[in-house]
Amino acid sequence: MGILQSKSIEVSEDTESNSFAKDDGSEGKEDKSILVLGAGNFGTCLADHLASLGNEVTIWARSQEVVDGINLQHKNVKYLSHVLLSENLKATTVLNQEVFDAVTVVICAIPSQLMRTILERVKPFLTTRHLLIFVNKGIEKGTLSFPHDIVVSELGEEIGYNATFLSGPSFAAEVVERKHTCVTAASLVHIRALRTQKLFHAPHFRVYDATDVIGVEVAGALKNVMALASGCSSGIGLQLNARAALITRALAEITRIGVKLGANPLTFAGLSGVGDLFLTCTSEKSRNFTVGYRLGKGEKLDDVIRTLGSVAEGVETVPAAYELCRKLGVDSPIIDAVHAVLMKGLTVDEVFKNVTHRSPKSELTH
Amino acid sequence: MGILQSKSIEVSEDTESNSFAKDDGSEGKEDKSILVLGAGNFGTCLADHLASLGNEVTIWARSQEVVDGINLQHKNVKYLSHVLLSENLKATTVLNQEVFDAVTVVICAIPSQLMRTILERVKPFLTTRHLLIFVNKGIEKGTLSFPHDIVVSELGEEIGYNATFLSGPSFAAEVVERKHTCVTAASLVHIRALRTQKLFHAPHFRVYDATDVIGVEVAGALKNVMALASGCSSGIGLQLNARAALITRALAEITRIGVKLGANPLTFAGLSGVGDLFLTCTSEKSRNFTVGYRLGKGEKLDDVIRTLGSVAEGVETVPAAYELCRKLGVDSPIIDAVHAVLMKGLTVDEVFKNVTHRSPKSELTH
Repeated sequence: MGILQSKSIEVSEDTESNSFAKDDGSEGKEDKSILVLGAGNFGTCLADHLASLGNEVTIWARSQEVVDGINLQHKNVKYLSHVLLSENLKATTVLNQEVFDAVTVVICAIPSQLMRTILERVKPFLTTRHLLIFVNKGIEKGTLSFPHDIVVSELGEEIGYNATFLSGPSFAAEVVERKHTCVTAASLVHIRALRTQKLFHAPHFRVYDATDVIGVEVAGALKNVMALASGCSSGIGLQLNARAALITRALAEITRIGVKLGANPLTFAGLSGVGDLFLTCTSEKSRNFTVGYRLGKGEKLDDVIRTLGSVAEGVETVPAAYELCRKLGVDSPIIDAVHAVLMKGLTVDEVFKNVTHRSPKSELTH
Repeated sequence: MGILQSKSIEVSEDTESNSFAKDDGSEGKEDKSILVLGAGNFGTCLADHLASLGNEVTIWARSQEVVDGINLQHKNVKYLSHVLLSENLKATTVLNQEVFDAVTVVICAIPSQLMRTILERVKPFLTTRHLLIFVNKGIEKGTLSFPHDIVVSELGEEIGYNATFLSGPSFAAEVVERKHTCVTAASLVHIRALRTQKLFHAPHFRVYDATDVIGVEVAGALKNVMALASGCSSGIGLQLNARAALITRALAEITRIGVKLGANPLTFAGLSGVGDLFLTCTSEKSRNFTVGYRLGKGEKLDDVIRTLGSVAEGVETVPAAYELCRKLGVDSPIIDAVHAVLMKGLTVDEVFKNVTHRSPKSELTH
């Protein structure tokens, strides 16, 4: 859990008068030059979206091959390789003072487990002048930190409070094809959320502003664990009635956890909550769903991960989510079930039997 | 709107001490003989479920052909005709004192627009001794009544308050194949909900008890309108991000309407709310979705209905839902959009353009 979460909540209640960023009318007017850290699926699609709106966008990637592909062929050779990216999208492998001085917006699209390392590296170049937007989700192993906690602990309170978090049902492949998408931009400093909204907003990409950073982060991190559960349920042959029930109970579970951490329960009924949960849990081609599905079919986790080539985000989150629920004292039957399968080697069938043979319950109290 | 809704809410808060049905330990012990009114899809699957649990179940149908099919071949020749129904499921075309005297449970699975006629017919045979369960959803045209209002106005307050309403994500085809399903049983008289739970509960069919009848009914009636909207969005080529956003905004809209009618907002986060909404809006083979999809593709409503052979439930509900929102003064952009397409002849494209070109919004306040 984050060191500053309780303090953050207090600030969120009076964001307009927050001393870190006052709205003197100038906020966001200059947001035309943008740096995107990370050329993964989502980072690439957001960079392309912003470039297509007429901004100057530079995407930073570690791989020279990816950078060359974007600069020379307008393609990300690793992700979304079938898509021709916007011509005013440039790429670089360089992270220095000059790169940061040239932009007013910095978007972090780095996986949560690697985020701290990158933030350490860019810290000398970042100021509160930068509109800093995070799009990664997850819980850091060991520290049980959400992205916002990591930002505050690495970059300090001032930059941390001003950070914005973008979340919601948004498959990268659809965003890059200009298919209609709605997301939430949350910042404790409300005008930063509004500035993010202004930056991204387009008829096909609607952005709703919000201030509940914790709620958005909890929902974003846990949906992937629920997608594993959804995959498991399909793997053992459960059908659509069961999936709808599972998603409903998953929403209740995520909401319980979020509320315990100080989130607004209504956030979970929104785009970053139920919206993204729906999409993720029904995304049958996603890695999280696939891992769950194959576990349901009786495969061992090690075999699934080996043949999948990379670890699904939800798998990384499960132990942290499980530990967090113990720490918070929150009832978390679905996370516990996924944890039992992934970490304790129980079969999905065994776990499912335990769940369905519980006594009848009242809906609102359990 | 129902004549007794505000009064119903008061009763719901103290259901255990409600004078209409006290829990003296005898409630539900004798629930072994059951009459199901209506041999449609859902009525048949519930009758089969209860028969398979060892109950004596009689299903009433108007059609001699359907009755003969069930009695002689254990098949419903009109619905679920590929399924072999339980052998202890009988059928009849008769509705008289003797039939009602022989049972302690009566389940009404009659479409909402026909419900009043059937209740008038069976009124002389019904007593509070009967556990009366309704599974139909909708809003009655003209009166804007939900099923519970119709029950109270036709059968009186005593029987009305004791009625139970079963709802949740439950495709009949999956229930009849014993696929895992979770539903909510709501009654203002809590022990009636518990008795219904006890009656239906099985490892593959979990029933959660609840007391928020209004919430369950509002969610049940409006999900079909939202399924039309979901079909429309697919029809004009919107994809999964858009659908997830639409379902999220649909949930917010249904919740606003329900809360205005006195429902508990948490009901909409439950099985009969988000669970059923999710299932219905993603049910690509359903009639409601299909109507919406074809409208999105540019067909005229009359042509769609003519070739579909029967009217989809959501189509019947749209004018009543629209009128109800006007009466309540609730903002209902999705219902209004579907109404504009169905009743005012606008194209889905036109309506969609109006919606997406609105100014950016804050998530929790709009």
